[in-house]
Amino acid sequence: MSIDRIRISLDDAHELAERACLSAGFSPDHAAAIARTVTAAERDEAVSHGLFRIPFYVRALREAGVSPDAEPEFSQTAPAVLRADCGYAFSPLALERGTPRLAERARDTGIAALSVVNAYNVAALWPEVERLATDGLVAMAYTASLSYVAPAGGREPLYGTNPMAFAWPREGRPPLVFDQASSASARGEIQVRMRDGDTIPDGWAIDSDGQPTTDPAAALAGAQLPFGGHKGSSIALMIELLAGALLGDLFSFEATEVDRAGTGAPRGGELIIAMAPERFVPGGDRAGDRDDSGPGDRAAHLTHAERLFERVLAQEGTRLPADRRYAARKRSEREGVRIPRTFYEELRSLAR
Amino acid sequence: MSIDRIRISLDDAHELAERACLSAGFSPDHAAAIARTVTAAERDEAVSHGLFRIPFYVRALREAGVSPDAEPEFSQTAPAVLRADCGYAFSPLALERGTPRLAERARDTGIAALSVVNAYNVAALWPEVERLATDGLVAMAYTASLSYVAPAGGREPLYGTNPMAFAWPREGRPPLVFDQASSASARGEIQVRMRDGDTIPDGWAIDSDGQPTTDPAAALAGAQLPFGGHKGSSIALMIELLAGALLGDLFSFEATEVDRAGTGAPRGGELIIAMAPERFVPGGDRAGDRDDSGPGDRAAHLTHAERLFERVLAQEGTRLPADRRYAARKRSEREGVRIPRTFYEELRSLAR
Repeated sequence: MSIDRIRISLDDAHELAERACLSAGFSPDHAAAIARTVTAAERDEAVSHGLFRIPFYVRALREAGVSPDAEPEFSQTAPAVLRADCGYAFSPLALERGTPRLAERARDTGIAALSVVNAYNVAALWPEVERLATDGLVAMAYTASLSYVAPAGGREPLYGTNPMAFAWPREGRPPLVFDQASSASARGEIQVRMRDGDTIPDGWAIDSDGQPTTDPAAALAGAQLPFGGHKGSSIALMIELLAGALLGDLFSFEATEVDRAGTGAPRGGELIIAMAPERFVPGGDRAGDRDDSGPGDRAAHLTHAERLFERVLAQEGTRLPADRRYAARKRSEREGVRIPRTFYEELRSLAR
Repeated sequence: MSIDRIRISLDDAHELAERACLSAGFSPDHAAAIARTVTAAERDEAVSHGLFRIPFYVRALREAGVSPDAEPEFSQTAPAVLRADCGYAFSPLALERGTPRLAERARDTGIAALSVVNAYNVAALWPEVERLATDGLVAMAYTASLSYVAPAGGREPLYGTNPMAFAWPREGRPPLVFDQASSASARGEIQVRMRDGDTIPDGWAIDSDGQPTTDPAAALAGAQLPFGGHKGSSIALMIELLAGALLGDLFSFEATEVDRAGTGAPRGGELIIAMAPERFVPGGDRAGDRDDSGPGDRAAHLTHAERLFERVLAQEGTRLPADRRYAARKRSEREGVRIPRTFYEELRSLAR
């Protein structure tokens, strides 16, 4: 199916997203953080987390009881654990403000965690781990969502699509990053295919009778499948526990129960872990002369990692995670992004 | 193929393993730690990490330059990071001694890491995360191995089978634990099938021409495949970075280069992360009255998790990770374990 598309600049995309959020009633700080987040995804051609999400944010604000203006409240619950209570607002603002604090903690204690709770999590996870890795840290992030995925062996949705993200810093270039659902596909990938009239590949989902399906509508009404069978299912379960029970926040099935309006905006927690490579080796402990830190010891870890990346890329047919996204980023920064014209008009009406 | 098997008690299994290690020249502390580790695996019917491994330990000691008696040296490289330098001995002793120290750190700082380096890692990861979770902590562990697995899209072995383990504490019952290779199968599962004259399932491996194979020998000569395609491959890459470059230790391909004798004993690091659930919520910070800790706040997190487990098990066809292993454990504690008679004789000759 050929779709009429329109090209807009990244600045225009950001402004459109921000105005739609402001018009919906978000505070200026939240509107700006959401706009930065979706524009970054659109820029990287991570379409299902891009401008595509703006109507979700707007609808959830109206119907799901999301706070338009709660300021994230930060506290330290242990020497290496920070907590950001989002007051039932969307998470991008807390994540933007929280990652530098987490980075500082991790450089101090070697490893540290940021628990983002009472949030609505709709965005991708790679922005926060990419920021941390750009700041020299190794980072991992986990969040649950809504009951979409059947546990291995089962037939009914229970787990969320439960993404995990990982980032590794690289000297003089953007970090190595991956951000992957523990389901065979992201929910948004199915939604985008339904919007565009496409089918979905085998192995992504079962219908409500438990039978394999390639129809996006039947998949959305049935259950998504974990990636990689029982191993992906175990990872989905781990992420429920990390983002839910560990942080004292909701499991995906509980988030589904509180989303009575069916907005698809999952309420819950996100766990982010950051590690400072230079604090994992003797002599890397430089409490007292922290100002002298910088790349110092860290360089050896990063140089070592590059030797592995060279080996990966020496094999024909391989690539490093995020390289496609970074190529898309370059393209978008030069040429802007292309979105369906009908969707552009929808955004314009939201931004009026 | 029917195999003549002999039944032995767990005590006998332990003694056999310990005597084989002592006879090979391991120090009493190392021999006992290795024997406890392989006996626990045999008990849980995790056969490929059980007594089956003893000839590997013995052969690696003779041929791979493993230290028979190096005492693990512990240091603290940052407030939340411990390091165990194994002095090129096998890891079980350092792991047994290190996990209580890690638990103490994690209860103090909320999240903490143990970096086990300059070790030979042949054992499963679940014993250490199970111990930590039995002690009330949420735990994750990662280790690389030798170049056995082709990156997604590639054809040549580069990554190790790179397991990750996770454990969640449960009140009044053994923890929820999983320990899974990022390859479609563990190396040992292929080796056991070769030993027993069985074939391997589709999707586990390619032969040295890059073609799918069900022949264990062709698989061992070719490359194993990651589980779940590029997502499993990304996890394998993450584990290389966490257990290798982060800790300042070897990647799988480097471990292969140093294993000139081809013993299959991977030298490298293991990263273990522990988190104290009660330190992730406000009011959980009780520095000063640590003696009052105990289950206190932790109970709420654990009770919450049980609600998820109930939902999983409510679906027909599902199970919780480790439940099969725990069932095997009960059986073995009652009835002992059954091993091939020829293998029993081999162990007896090693234990002479």
